[in-house]
Order: sequence, then C-alpha cells, then structure tokens
Amino acid sequence: MNKISPPTLWLSLTAIGLLSGPMSMISEEAVSYDKAKKAELRELATTYFGVLPDAMPGSENDNDHRRHLGEKLYFDTLLSKNNTQSCNSCHRVDQGLGGVDNAPGSTGAFGGVGDRNAPTVLNAGFQLAQFWDGRAADLQAQAKGPVLNPGEMAMPSEEAVLDRLRMDDTYRALFVKAFPEAETALTYDNMAEAIAAFERTLITKDRFDDFQRGDDEALSDLELKGLETFTGIGCTTCHTGPLLGGGMYQKVGLVNPYENFSDLGLEAVTKEEDDRYKFKVPTLRNVAITGPYFHDGGVSTLNFAVRKMAYMQLGLELSTEQTEAIVAFLGALTDKGR
Amino acid sequence: MNKISPPTLWLSLTAIGLLSGPMSMISEEAVSYDKAKKAELRELATTYFGVLPDAMPGSENDNDHRRHLGEKLYFDTLLSKNNTQSCNSCHRVDQGLGGVDNAPGSTGAFGGVGDRNAPTVLNAGFQLAQFWDGRAADLQAQAKGPVLNPGEMAMPSEEAVLDRLRMDDTYRALFVKAFPEAETALTYDNMAEAIAAFERTLITKDRFDDFQRGDDEALSDLELKGLETFTGIGCTTCHTGPLLGGGMYQKVGLVNPYENFSDLGLEAVTKEEDDRYKFKVPTLRNVAITGPYFHDGGVSTLNFAVRKMAYMQLGLELSTEQTEAIVAFLGALTDKGR
Repeated sequence: MNKISPPTLWLSLTAIGLLSGPMSMISEEAVSYDKAKKAELRELATTYFGVLPDAMPGSENDNDHRRHLGEKLYFDTLLSKNNTQSCNSCHRVDQGLGGVDNAPGSTGAFGGVGDRNAPTVLNAGFQLAQFWDGRAADLQAQAKGPVLNPGEMAMPSEEAVLDRLRMDDTYRALFVKAFPEAETALTYDNMAEAIAAFERTLITKDRFDDFQRGDDEALSDLELKGLETFTGIGCTTCHTGPLLGGGMYQKVGLVNPYENFSDLGLEAVTKEEDDRYKFKVPTLRNVAITGPYFHDGGVSTLNFAVRKMAYMQLGLELSTEQTEAIVAFLGALTDKGR
Repeated sequence: MNKISPPTLWLSLTAIGLLSGPMSMISEEAVSYDKAKKAELRELATTYFGVLPDAMPGSENDNDHRRHLGEKLYFDTLLSKNNTQSCNSCHRVDQGLGGVDNAPGSTGAFGGVGDRNAPTVLNAGFQLAQFWDGRAADLQAQAKGPVLNPGEMAMPSEEAVLDRLRMDDTYRALFVKAFPEAETALTYDNMAEAIAAFERTLITKDRFDDFQRGDDEALSDLELKGLETFTGIGCTTCHTGPLLGGGMYQKVGLVNPYENFSDLGLEAVTKEEDDRYKFKVPTLRNVAITGPYFHDGGVSTLNFAVRKMAYMQLGLELSTEQTEAIVAFLGALTDKGR
C-alpha cells in the first residue's frame, strides 16, 4: 500500500549483494532455467519489484456507492463541452485496451491533438504523482484537470460541469448515496473523488506476479532471460517497485538526448533548469499494449523503445537477442484480463 | 524520366550560388511570403527537387494489356501460399492509403512480422534501386522477391506460382495478350514485368508540384516556411530530386546514432564495413501518410521523425516552430487523390 521509495530499495539491494555491476548476469546464449535458477531470479524480482498490492492508497475510504458513481462518470461524455468525450476516450479500459488510446497524442473534444501521450489509468494510483510531470498529487487532483482543459474535454468551468450533473436526477441521487455525510454532495471535488474511487479498482493481474508469488511455470525461458537482462543492464535504476516505474522523476536522455528538445518536462512546472527534460518514470505494467511510447508518443514499437531507452539512459547498444528477451519479459506484464 | 543524380545536382546548386550555408535562410518569426519571395523559393525548389515526371523509366515498353494484367496480379492473393496476401496487402494503394500498410513491420502470410518497414510503392520506380538496401535494381526485380520470401507470401518456388497461374484460363489469356511475341508468355519474369508495368502508373500529384509549376496559391505561408527551413538546415544533403530522396544511400545516424544497432543495412548486402547502417534515402513524397518511420518503423509521428532526423543526420536541435513548419511542408507532398 505504500508508495514506492527507490532510495531505500537501492540501499537494500546493495546490502544484500544483488548489485554486482551491470552486464554481470548477461549471456548471449539461450538459457534454460532450472528450479534453483528460477528461485534466484524470483528473489531478485521480489527485491527489485514485488507484486502489485491488492488495494490502492486511499481506497480504505471508498465504498461501492462511490465506485459505482465514479464508473458512471468515467464513461460519461456529458463531462465534455460537446458531449463527445469521456475519461475513457483517452484512457480506455474497455475492449481489452490497456488504459490508453494507443495514439501518440490524444484528440480533444474539438479535434486538437495533445503534445503528450495519454498515460495508462491502470494501476495509476500506485504512482508517486499523476501526469507525466507529476503536477497532480493524486488521482482526485488529476481527474479535475482534463475536464476543464480547452484542448481536452473543454468544459468552461467547474460550475458548468455541476450544472449538467444537477440537471440529471440519477446523478443527484447517486452523489447523495456516495457522499451521505456531505452538506452538499454534488461538488466538483466529490465528482473527482468518485472517479478516483473507480480508478482505484483498476489493478491488474499478470504472469510476472504469478512468477513472483512462486509459480515456476508462469514465465517462459525467454521471459526469464529478459528479466535477467532487464535487471542486469541497469533498467532497474529507474524502473523499480511493483509498477516497474512510477516512483521517481528522471531526465529522459540521461546519457544521450531524446530528440524532442521542445518539451521541457518538469522544468515547465518547477521553473528549475535542473528539471529540464525530467519526466515521471512511467510504469511498465501493461507496456506491451500501451504504445506508442515516451512522453510525446514518438516511438511506435516496444522493440525500438527498449533499444532507445538503453542507449539514451544507459549508453548501451543492445543486441537483437537482448532486445527480444527484454521485450518478451515486458509482455509478461500485460494484465491477464486483457 | 532520368533517375536522380545528386552529384550533378550538387554542382549545379553550387554554381548558381544557392548554397550559402546552413541556417542562413531561417527565421523564427512567422513570415508572410510575397510574390517575389515565392518566386525565389520556387527557383530554390525546382533546383533542389523539380516536379515528378509524367512517366516512369521503363514505361516506354509498357502497354494497356501489361498494365491490366499487372494490376490484376498486384491485387491477387493467389500469389501467396495460403491465399491470404497480395502485393497490395503490404503496399496498399486502395482506400486512399499511401502505398504502405502503416505498420512498423508487415505481417506475412503465416503471421510473422518483418524487421523492416514496407516502403511505399507510389513513385517507387523513380528510385535508383528497390528495397531499403537497394538489393533489387528495379521494380521487376523487386516484384520477384516477396512472393517467394518465407516470411512474406511464402510461395515455395517460381514453378509453384506458375502452376497456379496456368490453371487459370483468364490469366493464361491475359499473359498471351500482354506478351504476344514471347515463345512462352506465362513466365515468372513476365509476371514480375507486368506487376512492374502496373506500378509504373503509380505516379502521384501534389500541391508542392503545383507550386513548382507556378501556382502561387498552392502552398500556405507555413508550408513555404517549411520548404525554406527544409532547404536551409541541410535536409537536402540527401533528400533531393523529384522524390525528395530515393537517389542515394546514406548512413542513418551520421552525426548521432540510430538506436537500432542490429540492422546493418547495406553492409548485409555488400559485406563492406563502410556500408554499416547505410540505407537508401527514402522518398518524402506522401510521407505524411506513410508512417511509422525509418527502416524498422520505430518512429510513430512525423513530428518526431523530423526532429530525430535533424539531430541524427545534422546534429541540430530543432525548435517547435522549425519542426512544425517542416511537417507542414511535408504534408504538401501528399497525393491529391488520397
């Protein structure tokens, strides 16, 4: 239930002697993993990552009424100026989609296309903050943004949103049920809180967690090799914790630059030059189904995203074998329900 | 009708004094172009590029019978082992598509995905050679490849293809009509030649050529600024001639590397280390509708492709304004029929 804390993790890894230097565990040959080797990899995995928790921070205050209201709001195009868009238009959880729209930038209610790639809503509440630059502290704060953003759902004001909801008998009743102790149940804050309550149910289950829980048959040899490569070359410098990311900010282009020099990332929020090109490290859960990749959606394939990350962040030129193993491992992070 | 010859072009540009150094014509402000300025840009454009010719090299020997047979073959799934794929499956010219399938790698008859991005068939015969590595000299030679490639159409042999065609009364008659003087009309060479004859009709018409021909209203100010930026920063080092490319080989990652280090490009054909990471410079005609980009389809947006090319090939960090202007200009290269 705790948010991810990489420095502590780093110290604990050093303490138990798992950090024996990059590349130390990498081999180019196909490997077959026996029971002992799987146990070793499981220890490595649970130390770096761990399984996704069963409940999300904040869900202790949720109840079925809030979740039900939130789900209705999440799918309702009433929240956009011209009734064309819902939360689900860009963060799609229907039809097996991975909580995204699979577009480089999302199309707003009036046809404009955003500069940033819509991040996945799946497991989103486990992150240290929301949006690529972390400018919203939590799911509730995040939910308030797109509704009023002129390039997204384009509602003119909180009051205009509330007017629409108040005109609807069902919503009036659902808000009272969801927030029975509130003097005024139907508020913009409560709308966002209900959406957040629904989003706190979006926790995925995948084969990687089955492996971490002890199932020796959950991952193929190629996927295990990918896990070994992923941890061995240093991807875990940033992609740690149960989300394999989502726990820190990092400069994209640490060793070699990312070629979009116009999006300053966190600097645009903090006005600190040290924050230039820093973005929240994205979660890799469901990454195989959430392309295109990076904050501007500029990269189309997971294969190229892996190669590019290795070169940009670690200065490594990955081989085809390394790349394919990592891509296979990342495929094991896809929600089994999708 | 001639294939493109960049060295000659380069000399002629130097001679007329148009190469006054990179960046010399670039300005960050929005520019309005008057008649004189448009005439200047037109001279620049026609010197670097020129309009697409009306006929393709080799078409002097074509006739309607060959083109008709070639078109039928181009769309016929009979050319794949399991009757699932035609030439058009990956190089799509139907439904307004740009001669590609818009996938990073194309899916073969039996579900495998190729490592390279399917290049556009539109205007393809104007190029100095075919395939990303130029391993086929012309359209006829190219057409013979995919039919027999196990990862593509997967026919087991030329003879197996001919057997299928011979069993079809219509094809037997069409081959005789298309190749009346041949002792044996229905041959694998003639099949490829007929497909090539059809492909030689795939010449596009766009607003950029309207501008080059003298229409001052064909391009917007932003597109003109894009043309000016494109020529000014040095994209024309490689993207020259009527195709804005297709006329030479160049190393991808000339200044800064492309992160796919596994595809050696031309080196795999010539076995010369100097040819490592060299690929045929792709045409930019229809580029706006032929993504994803680069030889492995690793880049999803034209915006990012432009930024990445500028950084990789020229060492330049493009601004949002420069990028958007170039992207706008490239949009004027889309076939008006699409």
